[in-house]
Amino acid sequence: MVFDVERARRDTPGTARVAHLNNAGSALPPTQVTEAVIAHLRLEAEIGGYEAADAVRDRIDAVYPSIARLIGCQPHEVAVVENATRAWDMAFYAMSFDPGDRILTARAEYASNVIAYLQVAQRTGATVEVVDDDEYGQLSVTDLRSRLEHGTGEVKLIAMTHVPTQGGLVNPAEEVGAAARRAGVPFLLDACQSVGQFPVDVERIGCDMLSATGRKFLRGPRGTGFLYVRESMLDRLEPPFLDLHAATWTGPGSYTMRADARRFENWETNYAGKIGLGVATEYAMSWGLDAIEARVTELAENLRGQLRDLDGVTVHDQGRRRCGIVTFTVDGVPASEIQQLLAARNINTSVCAASSARFDLPGRGLTELIRASVHYYNTEAEIARLIGALPAPRMSQGASPSTR
Amino acid sequence: MVFDVERARRDTPGTARVAHLNNAGSALPPTQVTEAVIAHLRLEAEIGGYEAADAVRDRIDAVYPSIARLIGCQPHEVAVVENATRAWDMAFYAMSFDPGDRILTARAEYASNVIAYLQVAQRTGATVEVVDDDEYGQLSVTDLRSRLEHGTGEVKLIAMTHVPTQGGLVNPAEEVGAAARRAGVPFLLDACQSVGQFPVDVERIGCDMLSATGRKFLRGPRGTGFLYVRESMLDRLEPPFLDLHAATWTGPGSYTMRADARRFENWETNYAGKIGLGVATEYAMSWGLDAIEARVTELAENLRGQLRDLDGVTVHDQGRRRCGIVTFTVDGVPASEIQQLLAARNINTSVCAASSARFDLPGRGLTELIRASVHYYNTEAEIARLIGALPAPRMSQGASPSTR
Repeated sequence: MVFDVERARRDTPGTARVAHLNNAGSALPPTQVTEAVIAHLRLEAEIGGYEAADAVRDRIDAVYPSIARLIGCQPHEVAVVENATRAWDMAFYAMSFDPGDRILTARAEYASNVIAYLQVAQRTGATVEVVDDDEYGQLSVTDLRSRLEHGTGEVKLIAMTHVPTQGGLVNPAEEVGAAARRAGVPFLLDACQSVGQFPVDVERIGCDMLSATGRKFLRGPRGTGFLYVRESMLDRLEPPFLDLHAATWTGPGSYTMRADARRFENWETNYAGKIGLGVATEYAMSWGLDAIEARVTELAENLRGQLRDLDGVTVHDQGRRRCGIVTFTVDGVPASEIQQLLAARNINTSVCAASSARFDLPGRGLTELIRASVHYYNTEAEIARLIGALPAPRMSQGASPSTR
Repeated sequence: MVFDVERARRDTPGTARVAHLNNAGSALPPTQVTEAVIAHLRLEAEIGGYEAADAVRDRIDAVYPSIARLIGCQPHEVAVVENATRAWDMAFYAMSFDPGDRILTARAEYASNVIAYLQVAQRTGATVEVVDDDEYGQLSVTDLRSRLEHGTGEVKLIAMTHVPTQGGLVNPAEEVGAAARRAGVPFLLDACQSVGQFPVDVERIGCDMLSATGRKFLRGPRGTGFLYVRESMLDRLEPPFLDLHAATWTGPGSYTMRADARRFENWETNYAGKIGLGVATEYAMSWGLDAIEARVTELAENLRGQLRDLDGVTVHDQGRRRCGIVTFTVDGVPASEIQQLLAARNINTSVCAASSARFDLPGRGLTELIRASVHYYNTEAEIARLIGALPAPRMSQGASPSTR
């Protein structure tokens, strides 16, 4: 099936201005999303913030079933929150750890999550274990199983980033989910970079909690995200914060929490953004996540292939399965210099620093990468522009020329 | 000095549609705010979310000094977050409590805060004490002082809502601040309903932490708020959540927190909203907070006076000092019925339920109130419309007619 790229680009005014290869940062939203957000902001200005929310209550309520359909859960298992980090926080910090409890994570784990593990380890005496990579550079399910069966202390949580920010790999979430279920250990999946670029189904994966953002591959507004919490998991978590939306003040010294996952939300909401998130979710499903994945993968593989053909350029993506994130280096040229050079030609990319991926990049001898992340509205012509704009490799002083 | 209400209304398109007396819910934003938010959303759609933030970095950075000027602190003592609840949470849940530690709060405390106290009390064994009201119905500073001097267990925190959501009183924050300082106890002020309607200065008040929202009297966008943390307090708080914005991952097992109050923020931000918050802050200061207070107080007193002149209507605002929030009942007529009746005539008000103010309203024999909250762009004509639209009191079945 041919992907109607022309229609996707007509829906995306930004494609006329930039070659946007920073979709793993924040994608260009379609007109449908932007205009829905703006229309609600104007309604708020015209009739009042609460009054506007009341006027479109049906659309706001419909965001939950939309997200539920996207990730294959029930609407009451969804909380819509400010962003993926706070979504993840509300789940992770809701876990209770005792000294010696173990948290298992992956080598390519997102820096923010690792900082949270370290903070909680310091607070509680829990320990953080980094599961080895396998021969593909993705999380080794064999090592994970071995750690679940051996070691001192109870494994309280498996927490993994589905698609790392610093590379094209897709971690084997379904196999991790199967191992977690067999071991009876809760599994928290950070799906910030995966939701929107390929099908993500919480039943197929078998995760108990999943966090995601609006602004990346889902093409929603900045400042939006959501959390999935499996119903059976709800009462095993204590929301780190509670307010009068998450709970009801039932008597002078008592309260009861909401029965659903919205106990992880709070009263005040960026309603315009929430409406935009709903529109983005429906818009993604209107293209079909399988079709999106096929297009994204094809473009990314095309880009990797052309990069590999260049002298002095190295592609660093690992994993058996790869996605729309492409990372590479040009010998002797700092990534930030490449990013700026491309930006001057209206080609948007970004830089990944090893300091934000300490379990991953340093061990692979990498200090920084340039990241070009494609979406379905990108074109082969944009990839050709990127390739054509790359600087020649430089021999670093006092070192012999690198070869691939 | 005459307040230029006509100019304020020209800046506020919503005034042509509604008599907006729900400013304590969410005020009508001025055009300047709405258009700044929308312009940034369009820029994001045109060049990309990160690229747009980079393009207006100066404006984003300028939000901190704007807020600092508004509340009389240093820019590095400000964190801009998703809303006032999350601002307050980041401070309150950053405190550490041991069994028997005491939290002192006020009778008119906001329900969300009380639920948080109860959650933390349950978790830690701390106790929550409600300071008595004085003869004006505001927090009794005498009782507060007495509780600071007596009682078993260390007072770890004084936490008070400056202006309650369910009434027109202004709690005596400066006297509470003085008592807190004398006792060496941290003071967290929930200024959600006060910032923007009168001058709020953290030095004059002497609070150590202050939370506020954008959407209410400051007239900023929904989904925006900020937290002030006094520099000397920073290292006595442990942010409940950390990410790669709040901290830097310095080695495999270590991290360091940011030196400033932005350790209470997280990486992802609703930048359009943040810009709007900055514009709203500057806009408020361009009118002058003293001038705003004078206008708001005059309108509110005008409204209270007219309400008191009506048979079967009772004004319930307490406090020695009163603000723009006016609460009342009409004998025998449910508040929700009044709110709907007014809404049908494009007069926006709201309802306060006793179940959300359990330390306050039930003890005063109240089950619900109608709330009309004025801002400087409201007019005497709008107040007259409200008065004219109120239903006649009804004799409740089996009860004798009420009198004021």
